[in-house]
Amino acid sequence: MKLAIYGGTFDPVTNGHLDVLYRAARLFDKVIIAVAPNAGKNPLFTLEERMELIHESVRGSEQILVETFDGLLVDYARIRGAVALIRGLRAVSDFEYEFQMTQMNRELQPEMETIFFMPSQEYTFTSSTIVKQVALFDPGRVAKYVPLHVAAAMNKRFGHS
Amino acid sequence: MKLAIYGGTFDPVTNGHLDVLYRAARLFDKVIIAVAPNAGKNPLFTLEERMELIHESVRGSEQILVETFDGLLVDYARIRGAVALIRGLRAVSDFEYEFQMTQMNRELQPEMETIFFMPSQEYTFTSSTIVKQVALFDPGRVAKYVPLHVAAAMNKRFGHS
Amino acid sequence: MKLAIYGGTFDPVTNGHLDVLYRAARLFDKVIIAVAPNAGKNPLFTLEERMELIHESVRGSEQILVETFDGLLVDYARIRGAVALIRGLRAVSDFEYEFQMTQMNRELQPEMETIFFMPSQEYTFTSSTIVKQVALFDPGRVAKYVPLHVAAAMNKRFGHS
Amino acid sequence: MKLAIYGGTFDPVTNGHLDVLYRAARLFDKVIIAVAPNAGKNPLFTLEERMELIHESVRGSEQILVETFDGLLVDYARIRGAVALIRGLRAVSDFEYEFQMTQMNRELQPEMETIFFMPSQEYTFTSSTIVKQVALFDPGRVAKYVPLHVAAAMNKRFGHS
Amino acid sequence: MKLAIYGGTFDPVTNGHLDVLYRAARLFDKVIIAVAPNAGKNPLFTLEERMELIHESVRGSEQILVETFDGLLVDYARIRGAVALIRGLRAVSDFEYEFQMTQMNRELQPEMETIFFMPSQEYTFTSSTIVKQVALFDPGRVAKYVPLHVAAAMNKRFGHS
Amino acid sequence: MKLAIYGGTFDPVTNGHLDVLYRAARLFDKVIIAVAPNAGKNPLFTLEERMELIHESVRGSEQILVETFDGLLVDYARIRGAVALIRGLRAVSDFEYEFQMTQMNRELQPEMETIFFMPSQEYTFTSSTIVKQVALFDPGRVAKYVPLHVAAAMNKRFGHS
Repeated sequence: MKLAIYGGTFDPVTNGHLDVLYRAARLFDKVIIAVAPNAGKNPLFTLEERMELIHESVRGSEQILVETFDGLLVDYARIRGAVALIRGLRAVSDFEYEFQMTQMNRELQPEMETIFFMPSQEYTFTSSTIVKQVALFDPGRVAKYVPLHVAAAMNKRFGHS
Repeated sequence: MKLAIYGGTFDPVTNGHLDVLYRAARLFDKVIIAVAPNAGKNPLFTLEERMELIHESVRGSEQILVETFDGLLVDYARIRGAVALIRGLRAVSDFEYEFQMTQMNRELQPEMETIFFMPSQEYTFTSSTIVKQVALFDPGRVAKYVPLHVAAAMNKRFGHS
Repeated sequence: MKLAIYGGTFDPVTNGHLDVLYRAARLFDKVIIAVAPNAGKNPLFTLEERMELIHESVRGSEQILVETFDGLLVDYARIRGAVALIRGLRAVSDFEYEFQMTQMNRELQPEMETIFFMPSQEYTFTSSTIVKQVALFDPGRVAKYVPLHVAAAMNKRFGHS
Repeated sequence: MKLAIYGGTFDPVTNGHLDVLYRAARLFDKVIIAVAPNAGKNPLFTLEERMELIHESVRGSEQILVETFDGLLVDYARIRGAVALIRGLRAVSDFEYEFQMTQMNRELQPEMETIFFMPSQEYTFTSSTIVKQVALFDPGRVAKYVPLHVAAAMNKRFGHS
Repeated sequence: MKLAIYGGTFDPVTNGHLDVLYRAARLFDKVIIAVAPNAGKNPLFTLEERMELIHESVRGSEQILVETFDGLLVDYARIRGAVALIRGLRAVSDFEYEFQMTQMNRELQPEMETIFFMPSQEYTFTSSTIVKQVALFDPGRVAKYVPLHVAAAMNKRFGHS
Repeated sequence: MKLAIYGGTFDPVTNGHLDVLYRAARLFDKVIIAVAPNAGKNPLFTLEERMELIHESVRGSEQILVETFDGLLVDYARIRGAVALIRGLRAVSDFEYEFQMTQMNRELQPEMETIFFMPSQEYTFTSSTIVKQVALFDPGRVAKYVPLHVAAAMNKRFGHS
């Protein structure tokens, strides 16, 4: 059985993340979506909320597990028996950071492969930063970029009725 | 059984290509290395030579098949029952062409995934163009970048004794 | 009356070109699409064919003129009384060449502005090189990227029935 | 009458901003320079100061209006009847963020065009971050990059006599 | 006697920095490594500690001086009689910032040259940000990227026994 | 005595090349400008002409030598006793090729350093390809980018009176 792991902060999960996740699920037997506890200085959602929003998004899939981890993702991946780390690659500006992370992770765990997926074209130009900027004024308008229940949660969080 | 396909001209195959190939072989049950007949205006080696150089490089692996194809790679991949196209991603300048090809291939065969591997750091900065430029003067000096029998074949081709 | 000029080889015109053209037509009173006589080493279509394919694409628009020119585009633009050169900007790799051309054109004609449009997302990842590669095997499959009559002309040119 | 809108934080306005503004003013009947209230964590100047510094820079031009706005710029642009958003494009690193913003803004207001200008070569390599770094030690030395009264205001702000 | 100056925050010094430093030392008679007092919001080490870690790294070299400075680096370089500023260039994303700094420094001190070195391939993909992220969990694992005494200091700082 | 070498095809030499050359000459005792015999498929000038145009440009400088070479530049540099290869770095798109060449040259001659200079801002956006395109129609208009005698030679070559 081949297991892959898709790490990130997912604050919140977007359709772009889910697109990469489902692409990975077609190639691996199981995919763990591993939510980092620390989501930067001012996270929009707590770890529990972020995990719950993902759970609702992937409900019904036996193939996808939602987990969290301590320490380095690459170590957690080894402990869980994963063969590969999954990354989405959207833009040139992602590229070099990803290259650095991949080389460092190989240094730390040489047997752990990192593979990259390109999301669907419709999610290529949407960063979560821009989604949050727009949602701040009117979460209804980000419905194309996040699942409905995530839009609803952002709506509530930003104090819209 | 999960099959992936790694297409290219491989004129000639380099250690960078083989690095990506072996990485893919760890995640898939079988990997076809599919050699494009047409290798640009002045190919160094014929299709048969290019395939033979790969055969010698992967001799003994049951998991790797060396084939050629007509038409579009993505169509051949579907016919062969592959689930994914393999690509190596070395540099920012590769990135946009790869993005275009991936989106076009999805248009043509939506169910065929494209996944990217980053080669080992030691192969990151070596393009086959630069290898050929150096080998033209002294093929012995490209021994780090191609298998020994490929260096020997280049040696012969460039008319060094 | 404000006139803009959109130059290129258009071998052949694609939906991406037309997208940029219509965006420009919303901001200017008239837009000249100026077809360069020289379309590289092995053009698919002659100058007359390329102009005719554009004519058919923009038929009925009073606002758009299809012309050709000799010499430098920026000089032709001045002679025609244009206030701006139109450019489509798709990818990072376009960027630096465009920057060079813009600065050179300012040197040559300081009063001629250059403005850039980003095409619709669906045309962002499609270069005419890739369209031609695919059309070589089956022009029907590029129908999303070029007008119908252009697909038909490519079909004929590539010797498909 | 064609109206364009040029948004930003302008903390403070630089010669690069003014260069883009005047280029836009040659193509449109009126240009609104729309100052965002929020200029990041530690703005150098208040909204009122930033607007006043622009007013002084464009004094005498009937064609340029200095305004501020709430909410999303693209919504404000629609309310004001603009046909286009103006952006300056200096560097590859600007490019992808601009592409994301453009695509998101089209999603939100499909009829609002975004057009890009390249500033004069002499302003290409000067970010306001670097201008502020230098001005911190000696505002006299940034005189090439900002109008005189802006250099004076920075001088005062940084506590130089 | 030709003197060059290599400025930075060095929080902490890495093998990548030392690689650039030694490359510069082969071309110049003396190289000053100039440590900026201010190392961002949450420096890992104080100025004194950062200088001490460098001193230990270059102990025994008559050719290398470790200093600190106030104000702009380019002014300090002139005062010290340097003919060139040294910069390491690792990645495309470094490139544009470096270009901006170089042009600004030429504006400020036209006679001061800036020259760039590419570090050894093994240090190309390692940013100090990533080194610190890994060291936070286990400094032993960054031994490839920093001198031993720096790894030890990070170990202590992160509260590992 | 420290010697550096600046290689290229120089077809023809431009003010951008000379700018880099003079910057190098301020740091080294002597600089060899090494003209590659092979200047691509359709060189504008022969090797002798290219060398002569450079000679005229640097006439009177004792510090600069104009030479040609066979084989690999890095080998010629060693034979001549150079300590460094000089490169100009104008644009992001130059960057990756330069990185590849630098790493390959280190492989071939580990003790040979490669250093990069950024040309003056006014030469940043001008490639020789664009200069030739413009000169084809009117060499008088490239006077800013090449020395006068080079403009004259291009004039003659393009058959202008």
